[in-house]
Amino acid sequence: MTGVAPDLLERARAGDKRATARLLSVVENDEPGAAEVLRSVYPQTGRARIVGVTGPPGGGKSTLVDRLAGAYRERGERVAVVAVDPSSPFSGGALLGDRIRMRERFLDEGVFIRSMASRGHGGGLARTTARVVNVLDALGYGVVLVETIGVGQEEVDVVRVADTVCLVTVPGLGDDIQAIKAGILEIADVLVLNKADRPGADETARDLAGTLTLGKPRTAWKPPIVRTVATAGEGVAELVEAIARHFAWAAQSGERDRRRRAAARGEVEELLRDALVRRLRALLGEERVDAAVARVAGREIDPYAAVEELVRGGTGE
Amino acid sequence: MTGVAPDLLERARAGDKRATARLLSVVENDEPGAAEVLRSVYPQTGRARIVGVTGPPGGGKSTLVDRLAGAYRERGERVAVVAVDPSSPFSGGALLGDRIRMRERFLDEGVFIRSMASRGHGGGLARTTARVVNVLDALGYGVVLVETIGVGQEEVDVVRVADTVCLVTVPGLGDDIQAIKAGILEIADVLVLNKADRPGADETARDLAGTLTLGKPRTAWKPPIVRTVATAGEGVAELVEAIARHFAWAAQSGERDRRRRAAARGEVEELLRDALVRRLRALLGEERVDAAVARVAGREIDPYAAVEELVRGGTGE
Repeated sequence: MTGVAPDLLERARAGDKRATARLLSVVENDEPGAAEVLRSVYPQTGRARIVGVTGPPGGGKSTLVDRLAGAYRERGERVAVVAVDPSSPFSGGALLGDRIRMRERFLDEGVFIRSMASRGHGGGLARTTARVVNVLDALGYGVVLVETIGVGQEEVDVVRVADTVCLVTVPGLGDDIQAIKAGILEIADVLVLNKADRPGADETARDLAGTLTLGKPRTAWKPPIVRTVATAGEGVAELVEAIARHFAWAAQSGERDRRRRAAARGEVEELLRDALVRRLRALLGEERVDAAVARVAGREIDPYAAVEELVRGGTGE
Repeated sequence: MTGVAPDLLERARAGDKRATARLLSVVENDEPGAAEVLRSVYPQTGRARIVGVTGPPGGGKSTLVDRLAGAYRERGERVAVVAVDPSSPFSGGALLGDRIRMRERFLDEGVFIRSMASRGHGGGLARTTARVVNVLDALGYGVVLVETIGVGQEEVDVVRVADTVCLVTVPGLGDDIQAIKAGILEIADVLVLNKADRPGADETARDLAGTLTLGKPRTAWKPPIVRTVATAGEGVAELVEAIARHFAWAAQSGERDRRRRAAARGEVEELLRDALVRRLRALLGEERVDAAVARVAGREIDPYAAVEELVRGGTGE
């Protein structure tokens, strides 16, 4: 393996967290050796259950994820947490500042926690997340929890990596329910009404149920609504149970295979594009591209015409 | 022109706002005819002054943008406003709901307002924004104000389209100053301390000034700090003046050309990639890609090896 200390993967497999963190950095930042790491872990992937946790800010997602991690630990699972914040310009680690409870879990041998932010992924946060998840999967984490901050399109893309997507809402969501309707609800497999001890829980549950019946069903799965009070640990067992039910249904119905095939397609298409672009750029030559850019910048030619010329010339037509 | 009503561009040029909105939708959603629109407007671009306005939520950016639009109108400019919200899953128009003042400006013939959200741009919000700005530029709007919601990486990318970037902050920013330091400050040409009548304005101004001296200077331009109270219109004339000074400096120093060349390069490279991928996909054939995807999904082969095989086969090596 070039570019990566040869024993890094070995040590990560043996449970060395420092080696695991380093390995993930190689993959996350697309450092030399990243492709080799991903290639060598690939045959070991596809075993973990990947659970996405998403929803508007202020829903208590971090606490819920911590509780979920604890519940899976009690069931004997090794658990990895990937916290993704597309709106943060910070690189890995910054999110952990306000995660005191999570920090305690750091001491647990069977838990690995990783923060990811938007820097340095060249816009491909969802792709990078999928790769990080693959590495954790191959390292033997039986459950990978992928938590996103926020509910934008990028979060939707990130959370698609999951076998089961949990959407976390809270009572009295008000206008936010509009945003949820518009996007994330479409991909939710389990709806979590957190802070369910607050006033307005019944109405919000009713609203959610109503919204669910409005949408066109993608599959035979009807997303259950699970009420939790994450700070007190209430409803967490029920949530674990709901996730397990969805996972079993997805495995049996073919939905899980469908999603994994879609993930494989995404990865192959991305790599294919990269490979083709590299080849053809070499063929075209940087000077020709530079010359075209200068003409476009000078408004001598529009970018479409410039690219037509380049492609025609470069492929000898 | 195929796919677009032939007189649409004509009518938009004549100042028809409905036609302009339709034209922008064609470009924004990459509808048939989008390339033709962009090609035909391209020779007329490069005239507008493009002003980016960005900063953390709650800074009063919308009010400030409204005031700026008013100030430029008083100076006889036609003004376009592009409000970009990467975190919103809504398509164009939704942001205007809470922009009552902006809505009044809608009645002004010389002002055009456009909202853009993250849906339907396939991750290329910055690219789409640049194209929308190009169309408005070509339609004769002398000033294009590009406002972003939030301060994430995507906003940084969006605002790079601007000749002059204004970063809007408020007194007592607290921890947010960290986020600003980390990302957006690097690309700010003018710092705006809005709500400057609030307590803590002096400290925040000092913090900002201190942060500025810490960073390594990209150029000889030293971003000024302009204090405003947008709700009362205070400091807006000074802000317009600061933007004009930066624009003049950028034009004279070559910084403006540098940025526009970078924009041209980005557009050419994107189009080139698209064109190459289309060509080679046709060459490879969908069946071969499908077969590779199935093997990757089944973990028979890793995605890297699959792509190597495809590329080798497809180009006859």
